[in-house]
Amino acid sequence: MSEMVSVVGDLDQVRFNEAGLVPVIAQDVFTREVLMLAWMDAEAIRRTVDEGRVTYFSRSRQEYWRKGDTSGHVQWAKELKVDCDGDTLLVLVEQTGPACHTGAATCFDGAES
Amino acid sequence: MSEMVSVVGDLDQVRFNEAGLVPVIAQDVFTREVLMLAWMDAEAIRRTVDEGRVTYFSRSRQEYWRKGDTSGHVQWAKELKVDCDGDTLLVLVEQTGPACHTGAATCFDGAES
Repeated sequence: MSEMVSVVGDLDQVRFNEAGLVPVIAQDVFTREVLMLAWMDAEAIRRTVDEGRVTYFSRSRQEYWRKGDTSGHVQWAKELKVDCDGDTLLVLVEQTGPACHTGAATCFDGAES
Repeated sequence: MSEMVSVVGDLDQVRFNEAGLVPVIAQDVFTREVLMLAWMDAEAIRRTVDEGRVTYFSRSRQEYWRKGDTSGHVQWAKELKVDCDGDTLLVLVEQTGPACHTGAATCFDGAES
């Protein structure tokens, strides 16, 4: 387990949905901006904690998605928090470049759809 | 529509899941803390924007849940943002009292489960 990622709460208590996923909120550890919401399964959580780099599970592509592998916009995980009933995670990240695929700093900077 | 709630993005473009729900991240507009994640359907969105008070849809109880009606810990919606692909909302709130049912300021202040 990476010493870089501080875990708050018990990852063994995470409750996954029927697809084996849990929603994860990514927040910039410096600016405190909410960057995006994506999903992890148990393996994505393990990889994120082990590597210190955020890995999600892409629902549309049904594959692991290590943030930044394509875009270069890596998220370094600093803190991973489990919520009170274990059905949501909050990851505090050092974000390299924009978080959103549109090039916006966050996925909430005006909808493109 | 309440003039108190500023909407960023197009609410007509929100994509609901198979249960007719969309995840909503609540963030404190002053402290920038992420408070909780809950869910809304189209009617809960409408009520939130109309009243300026955050209403979720409780998945466990299958009913509308106007935050604070039981606890007194009301969330006043200031800004409602749609994300880049329309499948997540971010609501910036003035939070009265603690956001979490455990009495903690946020649902991420150490898991109770």
